Amino acid sequence: ADAALAARLQAALDNKTKPVGALGRLEALALRIGTILGTEQPVLGAPQMLVCAGDHGLAARGVSAYPSDVTWQMVENFLAGGAAVSVLARQHGLALTVVDCGVRRDFQPRPGLVSRRIAAGTADASAGPAMTPEQCAQAIANGREVVRALPGNALLLGEMGIGNSSSAALLLSRLAGLDIGLCTGAGTGLDADGLARKREVLREVLALHAGATAPLEALAAFGGFEVATLVGAVLQAAQERRVIVVDGFIASAAVLVAQAIRPQVTQRCVAAHSSAEPGHTLLLKHLGLEPLLNLDLRLGEGSGGALAWPLLESACRILREMASFESAGVSRQQ
Amino acid sequence: ADAALAARLQAALDNKTKPVGALGRLEALALRIGTILGTEQPVLGAPQMLVCAGDHGLAARGVSAYPSDVTWQMVENFLAGGAAVSVLARQHGLALTVVDCGVRRDFQPRPGLVSRRIAAGTADASAGPAMTPEQCAQAIANGREVVRALPGNALLLGEMGIGNSSSAALLLSRLAGLDIGLCTGAGTGLDADGLARKREVLREVLALHAGATAPLEALAAFGGFEVATLVGAVLQAAQERRVIVVDGFIASAAVLVAQAIRPQVTQRCVAAHSSAEPGHTLLLKHLGLEPLLNLDLRLGEGSGGALAWPLLESACRILREMASFESAGVSRQQ
Repeated sequence: ADAALAARLQAALDNKTKPVGALGRLEALALRIGTILGTEQPVLGAPQMLVCAGDHGLAARGVSAYPSDVTWQMVENFLAGGAAVSVLARQHGLALTVVDCGVRRDFQPRPGLVSRRIAAGTADASAGPAMTPEQCAQAIANGREVVRALPGNALLLGEMGIGNSSSAALLLSRLAGLDIGLCTGAGTGLDADGLARKREVLREVLALHAGATAPLEALAAFGGFEVATLVGAVLQAAQERRVIVVDGFIASAAVLVAQAIRPQVTQRCVAAHSSAEPGHTLLLKHLGLEPLLNLDLRLGEGSGGALAWPLLESACRILREMASFESAGVSRQQ
Repeated sequence: ADAALAARLQAALDNKTKPVGALGRLEALALRIGTILGTEQPVLGAPQMLVCAGDHGLAARGVSAYPSDVTWQMVENFLAGGAAVSVLARQHGLALTVVDCGVRRDFQPRPGLVSRRIAAGTADASAGPAMTPEQCAQAIANGREVVRALPGNALLLGEMGIGNSSSAALLLSRLAGLDIGLCTGAGTGLDADGLARKREVLREVLALHAGATAPLEALAAFGGFEVATLVGAVLQAAQERRVIVVDGFIASAAVLVAQAIRPQVTQRCVAAHSSAEPGHTLLLKHLGLEPLLNLDLRLGEGSGGALAWPLLESACRILREMASFESAGVSRQQ
């Protein structure tokens, strides 16, 4: 059924008033969205930006340029509307939900904030597993449950967690079998010394958890709560045939774990951008996803997904609103 | 004054709640738009998509995969709302104006169509100059006058004209001193034989007009009316400090001619995308413009400019709406 629909979508695109393939990657995007939503006339409705936040015990080892306090401060900023993802979500009419998956500081309940706290930050992965298997399973279940309660047919992934580019690098190295040095970047802005130290710490963490080779074992070993919650969100959204818009390195690492469990999930994904974090390029390649944008972003939050969003809308409108050669009376190629 | 403003814009960007530079090329875009509009709080208002259309005598030599009739047919399609640029302009609230600069067929007057016809298509550039010096000057004056009458502070360039990728290739070769073979691509979709024939014809045209080395002489020699009208539009928009959004190969060729006359115009330009047409990459490099998107588009019309438009909006909103570290109470880098 999917193959027949894909053929009909391709025929519809080829019959629009433009040379065959002239809208390039936008046509591939239209094909993908149409296939996910199961229609030749896709309409993206009530898109949801889900920003999962959590703290990392490993941050105490100096793997980030920023202190852990920035996690809760940025959650406040998301909710106050002053962060990049808040501004961009507002621009594009994306509903913003922030999930406290385990930030080190408690929040007062308020609109837009969903509390699914596992603990006040993960344990230090350089001393033992970041999460227990139970915590990991609970975080995944939380992600599933949060998505189940959200309306719409598109989910944009976002995250916040000082230290979480370390989790992403460790997951990429372990699950894709790549050297940790290649997977590790400056994150939010380490200098050369800081980056060298981060690489050293991550090598140590990887060795400590040499036996954690299964996807969920690796996830529990390296964390974090926000990554595991996103894994659940991806699994649920894929099962419900939502269009999943993947942001940067950390969101992509959640997709990596999800696809190690269910390989089909990547068919529901659109990679928003290729970030400046070197591991992200390797990770997208491993997932077989081609990014839409390449703007040297290295912010996370879901900012890249929000920036790419209008392209998804455009792809749908091309299918729905462009004239065909026949309807417009335009001559075909000679 | 511009340097002081640029410094204030950079300081404002660096003080937003994100690591310095973490929004990558979006920050450079914000800096450029703020500098063009002369403010730290840029607002893009009443953006205008200007699609200039004209026919080419050289098309009779088989340099395009489509017949010349497609020019007027697509003008009808633009006005009926069924073309890619119509759909995308509607999506983003861009006012669409189509200018008949010299299409081979007459149009009935109607809303959205501006008639600034020079003639029913240019002369065959392989037999003589495509335009007389007077026609060329008139088309440039038309472009200036059309833009003067348009509201807003942003102009998006679009075009339609079967055969105009030949004009663009010839202008690039002549004005940038590049081999015509490198500048020539498949346009809307020539096959290998067609491309070889196009290269041969263009080499012949270039030799015939070996003396046309000054920008306006080259423009008159190679055409077309829509390119010359766009040259005038670019000169006028730059002078009025509008943000000029440059689409693909043909729109960029108009900027090439304009900057050969007034080098400062590129400072008012944003390159929307890098097209699949090989000469476009060379042309943008020559102009010193970095494209925002790279989606293998090869349609023209202004479609790439329309697709990139939301990024310009985002860049302005980042400046206007994002919180600073102080206002949000977020800790800085350690």
